[in-house]
Parts: sequence; structure tokens; C-alpha cells
Amino acid sequence: MIAKQPTVVIENLTPLVDGGRYPVKRVVGDDLIVEADIFKDGHDLISALLKWRKHGEVAWNETPLKPLLNDRWRGTCSLFENATYEYTIEAWGDSFRSWQEEFHKKYEGGVTPLESETLEGAALVRAAGARAALAADKKRLAEIADLIQAAEPSQVDAIAHWPELEALMAAWSDRSRSTEYVPYPLVNVDRERARFAAWYEFFPRSAEGHADRGSRFRDCLGRVEDAKAMGFDVVYFPPIHPIGESNRKGRNNAVKCEPGEPGVPYAIGNRNQGCPNGGGHKDVAPELGTLKDFDWLVGEIKKRGLEVALDFALNCSPDHPWVHDHPEWFFKRPDGTIKYAENPPKKYEDVYPLDYQNPQWRELWDELTGVILFWCEHNVRTFRVDNPHTKPVSFWEYLIAKVRAKYPDAIFLSEAFTRPKMMKALAKVGFTQSYTYFTWRSNKHELTEYFTELTQTEMTQYFRGNLFTNTPDILPYFLQQGGRPAFMIRAALAATLSPLYGIYSGFELCENAAVPGKEEYIDSEKYQFKGRNWNAPGNIKEYITGLNRIRHENRALQEYSNLRFFRAENENVLFYGKMTASRDNIILVVVNLDPWNRQESFIEVPVDAFGWMESDTYQVHDLLWDQRYLWHGSRNFVVLDPQTKPVHIFRVRRWMSREQDFDYYL
Amino acid sequence: MIAKQPTVVIENLTPLVDGGRYPVKRVVGDDLIVEADIFKDGHDLISALLKWRKHGEVAWNETPLKPLLNDRWRGTCSLFENATYEYTIEAWGDSFRSWQEEFHKKYEGGVTPLESETLEGAALVRAAGARAALAADKKRLAEIADLIQAAEPSQVDAIAHWPELEALMAAWSDRSRSTEYVPYPLVNVDRERARFAAWYEFFPRSAEGHADRGSRFRDCLGRVEDAKAMGFDVVYFPPIHPIGESNRKGRNNAVKCEPGEPGVPYAIGNRNQGCPNGGGHKDVAPELGTLKDFDWLVGEIKKRGLEVALDFALNCSPDHPWVHDHPEWFFKRPDGTIKYAENPPKKYEDVYPLDYQNPQWRELWDELTGVILFWCEHNVRTFRVDNPHTKPVSFWEYLIAKVRAKYPDAIFLSEAFTRPKMMKALAKVGFTQSYTYFTWRSNKHELTEYFTELTQTEMTQYFRGNLFTNTPDILPYFLQQGGRPAFMIRAALAATLSPLYGIYSGFELCENAAVPGKEEYIDSEKYQFKGRNWNAPGNIKEYITGLNRIRHENRALQEYSNLRFFRAENENVLFYGKMTASRDNIILVVVNLDPWNRQESFIEVPVDAFGWMESDTYQVHDLLWDQRYLWHGSRNFVVLDPQTKPVHIFRVRRWMSREQDFDYYL
Repeated sequence: MIAKQPTVVIENLTPLVDGGRYPVKRVVGDDLIVEADIFKDGHDLISALLKWRKHGEVAWNETPLKPLLNDRWRGTCSLFENATYEYTIEAWGDSFRSWQEEFHKKYEGGVTPLESETLEGAALVRAAGARAALAADKKRLAEIADLIQAAEPSQVDAIAHWPELEALMAAWSDRSRSTEYVPYPLVNVDRERARFAAWYEFFPRSAEGHADRGSRFRDCLGRVEDAKAMGFDVVYFPPIHPIGESNRKGRNNAVKCEPGEPGVPYAIGNRNQGCPNGGGHKDVAPELGTLKDFDWLVGEIKKRGLEVALDFALNCSPDHPWVHDHPEWFFKRPDGTIKYAENPPKKYEDVYPLDYQNPQWRELWDELTGVILFWCEHNVRTFRVDNPHTKPVSFWEYLIAKVRAKYPDAIFLSEAFTRPKMMKALAKVGFTQSYTYFTWRSNKHELTEYFTELTQTEMTQYFRGNLFTNTPDILPYFLQQGGRPAFMIRAALAATLSPLYGIYSGFELCENAAVPGKEEYIDSEKYQFKGRNWNAPGNIKEYITGLNRIRHENRALQEYSNLRFFRAENENVLFYGKMTASRDNIILVVVNLDPWNRQESFIEVPVDAFGWMESDTYQVHDLLWDQRYLWHGSRNFVVLDPQTKPVHIFRVRRWMSREQDFDYYL
Repeated sequence: MIAKQPTVVIENLTPLVDGGRYPVKRVVGDDLIVEADIFKDGHDLISALLKWRKHGEVAWNETPLKPLLNDRWRGTCSLFENATYEYTIEAWGDSFRSWQEEFHKKYEGGVTPLESETLEGAALVRAAGARAALAADKKRLAEIADLIQAAEPSQVDAIAHWPELEALMAAWSDRSRSTEYVPYPLVNVDRERARFAAWYEFFPRSAEGHADRGSRFRDCLGRVEDAKAMGFDVVYFPPIHPIGESNRKGRNNAVKCEPGEPGVPYAIGNRNQGCPNGGGHKDVAPELGTLKDFDWLVGEIKKRGLEVALDFALNCSPDHPWVHDHPEWFFKRPDGTIKYAENPPKKYEDVYPLDYQNPQWRELWDELTGVILFWCEHNVRTFRVDNPHTKPVSFWEYLIAKVRAKYPDAIFLSEAFTRPKMMKALAKVGFTQSYTYFTWRSNKHELTEYFTELTQTEMTQYFRGNLFTNTPDILPYFLQQGGRPAFMIRAALAATLSPLYGIYSGFELCENAAVPGKEEYIDSEKYQFKGRNWNAPGNIKEYITGLNRIRHENRALQEYSNLRFFRAENENVLFYGKMTASRDNIILVVVNLDPWNRQESFIEVPVDAFGWMESDTYQVHDLLWDQRYLWHGSRNFVVLDPQTKPVHIFRVRRWMSREQDFDYYL
């Protein structure tokens, strides 16, 4: 008989996303803590291993699982490479350990004779020797088998518990009847920037802030230096590709544009400009420079320790080369002409949507995948994907898997401003990060509820929220109405609620002029050149610099699922914190959510969660304003003035006093 | 391109057991309510169907799913046959309904011209006509397509919403790009007795109650009649097979038996008695009669509307024919002899355990499966399985699947008195019912907690608890100490907390003589002949008859997951109820858990759950003692005397008063 039936039940494995259908996400250096229910029939003792390997490798790494309570077992491994891993559990009834226990019970219980049992033990040890692949182990196991065979029961019971023998028997255990959990769950291990990064978005054509003409790639260094000085990690460019001319939109989204207006970078494709790759998604707009200029800029950014993120916007202008070369990829009207985008009764005549289910879908999907691979070859690894929820989820699973197979360091940010389940589904199929509803969550109840869901539920296994304060499409009412304090409040929340956050440039200047009644920018640079003084008075660049410095200096703020909310008595005051598992970095954040009024509150510091007592004294050091206070116990008081200091970000250290009269901070 | 990628996301399907790994359980006539998250990219409207069929059939039954909130959808089907079903969801972007909505929005929005849109609609209707398999539909769709093509926008908008057209388009919808949930989950639909049955266990050899000799199958009718009179549905026999002679146990589990002692029916197998099938699991003990006698008894029981359950105990006495014919199926000592069962330091020399993982495991597994099939051929369909947790879980999955394929009406009751996860695993792999911890749960807190888990969690999808008050192995302390009132209390709890319950004979006589300090019967009939007067004074047969009558007359007590606990102020009073989904049968149960003292309590009747108001008056009719009370609102008072009426089982009906001064009960 070759077929093998499972001998052990292994179930309720964690972590798993949708029962193992999708990979779990981790970053390099993370631990993976695996648990499962493991049990079998009868009285045999079980041995179990956690096994893991890079996907595609043959040899497993192994570490023992330890039993907890009620048939639950746990094991931990560390994931060191930016790669896809798989893991499983192998468990079996351990005949040696079962014999060891049974022999001991019989011996203690005064059962005689124990000759047969002694011979059984010797045979088990001898069989392990036969399995052993190391000559020394082979020899030693044979010796011990002989010892057992010749021994009195009391000696057998002693030898059976020799640590040396236990180690050898564990090393060469009989796993011929073992059971493995299948199918193997996958773990995508991303690089660190997948979970910890501050993004700064700007339009390359706006780099210098001229009102009458656009900047070029070669003009972007000033903006990059500024982003670096503020402490950002990623500079993100909206689309840099040729812009269509047919039905080009004018200022403030006017249906007709005036001559000389630059067009919307999201209307991609112009095959009439002589670009080297046809004028579509694999070219840069000639008005920004050449591919060589772009490569130069990517290199300069990298030299400064930052990286570039490109926008992946799958909109085609009527002038896109695909429209000419592959009309079969687009939707048609009954008269055979190509359909433009609509959201009835609204029309978007400057953009043609792609038909992802057209009969030649595979060619289309491969071409789109090729676009990402093209920019990877130009040293881009981070992609912000525009409106992914208007393309099939299965398309993203296809594309991201293909890209990650070649570039495991690729990062995809999903601009899924859509319904919650679609947002989650995109994260499951492979998006590294996602936009969130943070942009519209401003009161205490909704922030607490939403971020508890994001960081304290199963979502942490696959979803990483990147908190944007604003985007070229969204100027939230809170920013429109709350003035400079509102910008400070939102920046602090974004920078500390998640290790991933971003601002769209102009935020640091507290720009808040909106289309009346809408959450949109008036005179948006999406449609025009925009004059700006990047050091305009009233800017909060120094404040943002402080936030990013604090993030870089405190590991607790670089983790995602360690957010905890604490009690503040005032409904306008939000109080939360983060700490590392070892508690060596503890951060508390108190935010006045009211941009107009001074708010005071008693707050409850979770001293017990820090492992301290109610009677302990500790220092809170406000890292933003460099002020220190000695606090005592859980109940403390804060005052937050939105005009000066709307936020406290405290690093907390216990005050230790010793008989030597020597104070230090632990 | 032939390969197809999913166009719709279908996830978080319910019901599923372990993500679909195991079947869900239902009984004939049940509804299956299926829910899932269903969504797709873009603005297309989705249509979705619930599909189901008997496993192995080709054609699906279909019914539309309806959207709830937040991308959740629901559909319901009814399962009418005792068979294994499979089900799935099929969903697709519905091009007609999307067009219908889009056209309406454009028309309402004043968009002109709408010629192209009109042609699109006509084309969609025409294409449906081409798909239609009914000539009349084909013709009508072609006509409507022509109508649309020639119509003004206002007419098109009207025709698009004709119910006739909507029905035709739904019937011949374009499902070429639809997505199905895979793999298809399974539903085991059992016959009614799988979920609603009262079991009565007796040893055939004890049927007449002689102290000096055993009864035979032909002597069992009296006991069967008595079980029928008490209202039981199933009579369950401990093993009826030949009993081993080697190392036969004597009275009270004595290591040596005296000549003439009958032996333990669980030490199965005696190849020295000339039985027709070798003297093992496919024979009956000669002292009980012949297989023909057994067949006669099964027939008589069936005639009376009851059925037989046999014990499937996989213990082999040293005299079992398998020991002789298949020594390779057993565990061996180093000297080659067969090992007897042990639980060190205890020894069970009269029983040899089987080695389910022996190299010839498949032959063993098939032989054991054959035992069940043999008794199915002898018109037995219900099997109580002894200690299933000492055999591999995968073995039970194998055996039960093979048996159900031929006999879908087979019922397996798992005697899994073991750890909770093993108990659940056995239910998942196919056991129809399971023993529970009820036998040891006697206070209010533990009963409430345990039965909330059994009936209000995911367990209801696969686990059906059969509540035994006692067994030949277990005489709980509560029964030992509480006298006749304790028996009445436990019988009422068992009969009303679950639609499945059982008693081991002698319970109705309030037998409670125990081995001192143990939960075991003294002078147990497992080891000896037992003299009994089946109508001994003080018996509670009439009371049990009442319980079973109430169960048969009230559908609420025949359902499993409708149990709800309500508040009683006195900690010794347990208050719970069950009602049908339509609320036409409402049962409230109040139990005094103290067998020694009278207890009084205020109780809170959940009038709001019944759809009534606090001001409503209603009648509670105690079905056990045939007493009626008029109650008002939620707060009411009960007095329970353990010596007379330790339990109320109320049927509740609303008291309606009308101006005609005519009272009736709704």
C-alpha cells in the first residue's frame, strides 16, 4: 500500500487569509508566529514541527512547536529575505516519547515483568540509529540500544530520560507516519518600505512653482531636496506620460482647453509626438524631458536615500497608441466606434476605458504587466495604482504575481477609494498598501473605530493602510475649514496612526482653497500650471520635519498592528499609543481634534500595559516640543492649544530611583 | 483564448465548515440559507444565483440571490431528499440590467442623442433571443428588439422596464462571463431521525430481568413495547456479538470470571462457537439467538414505528477470528505475540486493540466498513460507535463516506467522551450525532455556557448533541445523590435542551446504586445477569412518557439551534425556551436544578422576542401537569417543588381580546 491517510488532525491554523487562499504579509526581519490545533486518536504523545522555506526551494527549515492549552500548539520562525515563503506544520505520534512515558508509568506503577517493554525501547532506539544520517549518532544510538537491552527496569527508566538520548531521538524521529498541513500557506515578505514610509506627492511639472510654464525632470532636484529635508522617504509622481490632445480638458476641468494649456496627466497617450516607444505608457511626456532625463532623476533621488513612486493609471486618451494598434482592447458602440468613459449622465470624452474581458484579454493583460516591468527596468519599484477597483480583481492578482516573481521588492499602493470589501479584496490579491478612509475620518469615535478595525483585526494579516491627508482629488472639509491647526492635527494623526502616510504637496503650505461646496481644489494643478512659493509664510514644513524625525527615531512608530487607544475624558481629545514588543520604545500621542478651541482632558495612561504599577513615577518627553514632565500613575492631565501645540507626542520612560541616589531612565 | 479569469469576487460564503473542507449538515425539508460577499469592478449591476444539486447529478437547481447591505447577498433553497447535495453561487455583471439603468440615468439626465444607446439595448435583447432555448421566447425577444430599435428614447426607457422583458432577459441572461464559487461546498441532508429522536438503551440479555439467566432476541418484545409506550423512537443495543472466553471478566469487572458468567459484550469475538460468519462482528452471540432471530426482532421493532441502533465497538477478544486470520492487523510485542489493551498501569487482557496504521491498513479499513454494510443489509441503519476517538479520525471519514454512498439514511452516533476538539473533529468528518458533556453538567452556569456553545455557534453546522442522562459506564453523582427528583430533573433537561436525547434502561426505575466513590454502577449488567422489575414502585415511566409526548406534539422541541436562555433570578432555577421560526409553537421550560429544596424565582419572559408587548396578556399551559395560567408582561413568578413538580414545560399562546367579547388563542 502506498496511499497514506492522515494520522494526526491539524486544523484552525493561524495566520491564514481566507483559509489560505491568499498570502499573509510580513516584512523582512519579522517573526511569523504560527498556531494550530493538533491532536490524534489514542494516547500517543505528539511531536510537531513548524517548517518554512522560500517558495520554490526544496529543503525546509524546521523548529519544534510547543503545546499550549486544549490541543493548541505554537511555533515561531523569523523571515529574513524579501521573498515569498511557504510554511506548514508536520506532526506525528511520537513512538519513542510515548514509550518513554508508558514505561515510566508502568515502572512507577510497579508493573512486572517489563522485559517486553525494555525490548521495545531498545528496538526504537536501534531503529533511530538505522535512520540516522550522521555516523556518530548512528554509533551512539546503537550503543544506547545495547545498554537498554541489558538494563534493569530502573536503569531503563533512567536511560530513557537522558537528555542526550532525547535529543538524538528527536533528531532522528520516525516521521514515516507523519501528517503535513496542506496546502502550504504562503507568506509574502516585503522589504521594510512596504510597511514604514512617508510619501510626498508632487507633479514634476510644478517642481519650481512657475505659474506660466512647466518644470522638467532636470528641474526637480529642488523639490526632492525639500522632501528629503522634511524627512520623507518616497517621492511620488502623478503620471509622467505623454498627455492626449483630443478632447483635452482645460483649467478647472473645463470641457474645452485653451491653446497652450498643459492637459491632465491622467489622460495618457499621444502617439503624435514621436516618442521612442509609441507615446503611451512606456514613454515620458516630451515636455518633461526624455527617458534619459527620467533615469537621471531616479538616480539623483536614490543617491539622496529616497525613492520614486510612479502612478499606474490605466486610462487611455483617444491618442494613445493602443487605440490605434489594438482597437479590440476597447469597448465599442453599435456603430463600431470606441466608447469613452461615462458615469451617467457624466461623460469623460478625453478617456477611453479598456475592456479587460475582451476576447484578446490575455494579450492586453500581458501588455499592461509589461508596462510595470518596463519601469522596473528603469529602477522604479514603487507604484501607486489609480482606481484599481474599476479593473477586475483577478487582473491585479495576475499582474502583481508576475511582477513579484521577477521583482520581489516591487511595492503596489492601491488607490481603492471604494467600498470596504473591494478595498480588502485588492489587498488580499497582492496590493502591498492601500489608501484608506482616514482622509474623511476626523472625530474621535470614527477614528477609534476605524483604526481599531485596521490594526486589531484579521486585516493586519494582509492590509496596510497608507494614510493620505489630502490628494490632488481630495481637499477634505476639515482642512478647508480648520486652517493651519487643522493641517497640523491631520499631519500628526497620519504620521502616528500608521507607519505609512503621505501628503500631496501644497499641504505643507496649508493650501486650502476649494471649489465651493466640494472637497476639491480650486485651480487644481491637475489642469494647469500653478504658481507657488514653496516657502510661503505660515507653512508647517518645520513641524512636518519634526514628525518625520520622530518616526525615524522611534521603532514603535514603525510598526503597524501595535496601535492601542486609551481613554481621554474629553470627547475632543484623542489619546493613543504604540510600543515595541520588548517595551523599550513606548510612544503616547494626545491630539486635540478641535482646530478652533483649546481643549483640556484627564487621560488614563495604561501603566499596567507597560508593566508598571499605579505608584510608579515616569517621565514623558514631548518629542515635538522637547518638553519633559514627570507623571505618576495612570490619571494625568493635558492641555492642548490648537494655535500653538495641538498635539503631544510623548516618549515614555520609567523614572528609577536607587539607593545610590543615582537616577536613570530605563 | 479559452482560459477564463474570474470576473466577480465571491467570498465569505456561509454556511461553510472549515472553509468548505467538511460538509454542512441539514435534515430533509430544511432550508439552506446561503450568504456571500459578491462584488466586481466598475459600475456594472450584478446578478447572482444560488445553485444546488444532488452530488453526482449534472443539472443545477437555481434561485436568485438578493442583495442585502454592504455587498452581502442571500438566497435560500430547500433540501428535500436524504442525500448529499452540493451548492455554489454563480454571479456575473449583468449587461442588460446595467444598460437599463444607464439608459434611464442618461434619459433622465437629458443626455442626447441616445441613438447609439438605443441600438445597444436592441442588440442585447436580440442576443438574448438568440440564446433562448424556447421558441416562444426567441420570437418575443426578437419582436421586442425591433420595437426598441424603432422607438423614441422615452419609449425605450419604458419598454426597458416592462416586467415581461425583465423576466425574459433574466431567463436568458448572458452568463458567458460569469464566475462560480469553487470548490462546491457539500451539504449532507440526513433523515429526520438524525436530529429528532429519543433513544432507549437496553441489553437484550436483560430484556426480561431474570437474575439467573439471559433473555434472547425472541424475548425482547416486552421491553420494546415498553419503550414504545414511553414514547421512545430508537432502541439501542450494546454489542450483540459473540463474547470472548479468554480472560473473560467476572462480576464487577473481576479479573477472573466464575463458570457460567456471561462476560462483557464489549469483548467481541469467539470463533469457537460455530457461528456462520466466523464468530466476529458479523455474527450474533448464540446465547441471544440466530441472525434470523435478530432479523425477526428488527422487523417487529420496525412494525411498531421504532428502529434499532447497534453498537459498533472495535474491540477484539483474543478469540476473535481476526486475531487468527489477520494477526498483521494487531500490535505486536518484541516476542511476536499480540498486545492487549493498556492504559498504564491498567491492563485490559480481554481486549486486543487494532493497529489502524499497519501496512495492510486498507484491508482492515475495508473489512471494518464491511461490518457496517453487513448490518445495513440486515435493516439496521443506526450505529452508536464506541470510543471513536481511539481510532484515527481519517478512518471514520473513510468508513462513513463509503457507507453513506450506499446508505444515505445511515446514522452514526459518536461516543466521543473526550477532549473538545477531537469531539468536534469526529462530527466534522461525518458522525451524525455525538455524545456530549451534558452528562456531567448540572449547574446553571455550566449548562447555560455549554448549550449556548452547542446551539448558538458555528458548531450547529456540523455537530448534533445527543444528551444521555446515564450510560452503562456512567452513573453521575447528581443521580446518585439526588434521588427520584434528580432523575426527573435530568430527564426534562435532556428531553428539552436538545431534540436528541437518550436514557440507559434502569434510569426510568431511578436505579442509582454506585460503586462507592465512583460514577459507576455497582453490579453492572455489563458483567452479569441482572434481576429487575421493570415496573418497580417509584418509577418515572409515566413522567418520561409525558416528556416524549410533549416532544412529539411540539415542533419547537424538534429543532436544534433554536434554544435560548432567559433570565431567572434564582441561581437554582434554569429558564429557557424554544420556538419555531414562524412563532406558531413557543415552548418555555423552567427547571429547578436543586433536587432537595423547593425553589421560587422571578423569571423574565422574552415577550419582545415573541413579537408581543409588555402590556400583553398570554396563556402559559404546563403540558406536563396540564395546568394553565394567565401571565402578563415579562416579569412572572414560579414555584418548583422537586418532590412534586420540579419542572414546568409551558406552551405559550397569546390571549387576544376583541370587542365582540370573544376570546381565542392565537
